[in-house]
Amino acid sequence: MKTAAFEDWKRQAQMAVEAALEAWVPEDAPAGLGVAMRYGVLDGGKRVRPLLVLAAAQATGGSEGAAMRAAVAVELIHAYSLIHDDMPCMDNDVLRRGKPTVHVQFGQAQAMLAGDAMHTLAFELLTAPPGQEEDFELAPALSARLCGLLARAAGHTGMAGGQAIDLASVGKPLSHAQLRDMHRRKTGALLQASVRMGAACGRPDARAWQALSEYGEAIGLAFQIVDDILDVTQESSTLGKTAGKDQDSNKPTYVTVLGLDAARRQVQELHAQAHAALSGSGLAETAMLARLADRIVERDS
Amino acid sequence: MKTAAFEDWKRQAQMAVEAALEAWVPEDAPAGLGVAMRYGVLDGGKRVRPLLVLAAAQATGGSEGAAMRAAVAVELIHAYSLIHDDMPCMDNDVLRRGKPTVHVQFGQAQAMLAGDAMHTLAFELLTAPPGQEEDFELAPALSARLCGLLARAAGHTGMAGGQAIDLASVGKPLSHAQLRDMHRRKTGALLQASVRMGAACGRPDARAWQALSEYGEAIGLAFQIVDDILDVTQESSTLGKTAGKDQDSNKPTYVTVLGLDAARRQVQELHAQAHAALSGSGLAETAMLARLADRIVERDS
Repeated sequence: MKTAAFEDWKRQAQMAVEAALEAWVPEDAPAGLGVAMRYGVLDGGKRVRPLLVLAAAQATGGSEGAAMRAAVAVELIHAYSLIHDDMPCMDNDVLRRGKPTVHVQFGQAQAMLAGDAMHTLAFELLTAPPGQEEDFELAPALSARLCGLLARAAGHTGMAGGQAIDLASVGKPLSHAQLRDMHRRKTGALLQASVRMGAACGRPDARAWQALSEYGEAIGLAFQIVDDILDVTQESSTLGKTAGKDQDSNKPTYVTVLGLDAARRQVQELHAQAHAALSGSGLAETAMLARLADRIVERDS
Repeated sequence: MKTAAFEDWKRQAQMAVEAALEAWVPEDAPAGLGVAMRYGVLDGGKRVRPLLVLAAAQATGGSEGAAMRAAVAVELIHAYSLIHDDMPCMDNDVLRRGKPTVHVQFGQAQAMLAGDAMHTLAFELLTAPPGQEEDFELAPALSARLCGLLARAAGHTGMAGGQAIDLASVGKPLSHAQLRDMHRRKTGALLQASVRMGAACGRPDARAWQALSEYGEAIGLAFQIVDDILDVTQESSTLGKTAGKDQDSNKPTYVTVLGLDAARRQVQELHAQAHAALSGSGLAETAMLARLADRIVERDS
């Protein structure tokens, strides 16, 4: 596929995700809560997770309407985790996507609540309003399945568990295996879930499901290693968040544990694994997923 | 129904809920996260919400296995909200259920994460593990419906929205209508959802569903007004949490807005409404729900 075609698809998909977030994250939630929620998720992200959902749904013949709900739900989980992660009791970060973080802008209490409300909203968007089950875009079985995939990636076995390890590992040496486990949970699980949720919207056979799961696992881990690399090689102005913070906070990363060169080699290996998984998937329409893997590896912010 | 029969049922149900929480809230979640989660939810609560779920399921002929998942999910949402609510940036409370609060015991970061992980776990328990859809206690449509009811009660239209209003209303006069709106969202929505989720496990007709929704709404609001009353009439040692804190933090309550006598009259009216709804439900087995309404009104802690 031509780069131009990918760029067109990506831009259109990002605009559609932005429009869905605009429509579904309510400005009128009480007492400024909606304003804080929207501040925390609108206008800024690269929308990597939603793009993975949409590309995986496309690859497996899933409906765009269903996939968009899954895409927005995943992004809301990601955005809530950033809000909580930035708070003073966690990473104490003041800059995110080039803007003051939510707690800097709205206070800690509102930030915590906005994160909580976004966390819940993800599941709300995946389920029919009471009494409207028959007109809803997601059939009940798909609705339940998407909730299940998302919860397992976001909770104690996934993202929240990874953050707990992250928190406990400050200043401690981790083995490569421990570090990989932390990264897989903290970042990898939700990225893999994005691919799986997209695929669940379509009709993948067992082979395609397995291949897409492997693809998701590889790019999920690669994404976090690239983050570790960018943290030491880029400026804050490029990243839109504070650079060098892992080092400053004495957190183990792929760069501190393996060194920069070995970290880069790991990324290349995972990149190759992701492509190999797509090639073996038996699916025809994997071009967008392939280009997304390239971007995750080649990005500079 | 005899009081002794109710007491027996309640004790057995509470023990079953405790056993389910023991089994489903994982001790081995990474880096102490499971320990903090269990500390925040085991051994302590009155389990009002789970009891409502179980009683409503019994009244409508729902399976106990399905209802127990709903009961534990609701309790996890309640428990996560208490953990976050107790944190220094919110109510800054150090005592809960007679024990140091989670952030006092484990630090703020772990407390926030434990709350987040419990929030997600609620939805995990309502959905089948991937690949085990066919053996799961909840049929997909029920699974999706329970997730939807829970999310709508917990999120910006319900509990999180009510907490935002609560936060914004410190030191401000609220009208009776505004106060009622806040209480309905902050506490009432999850209590009503408990009744509805239990009923969704059974086979209520439209009349019974409507009646149970009205029952849930009445006891949901009554519960919070009783809380407001107890805050000024009881000692901390009886409550197991800090008494007088609404007054100290200058928060509007039914007692400050209506006065103690009018607040008590409101509770009696809501109590009568709850019983009237049960009488008009067309359901035979509403004795447990009726006694739970009595307890919510008559409790002294």
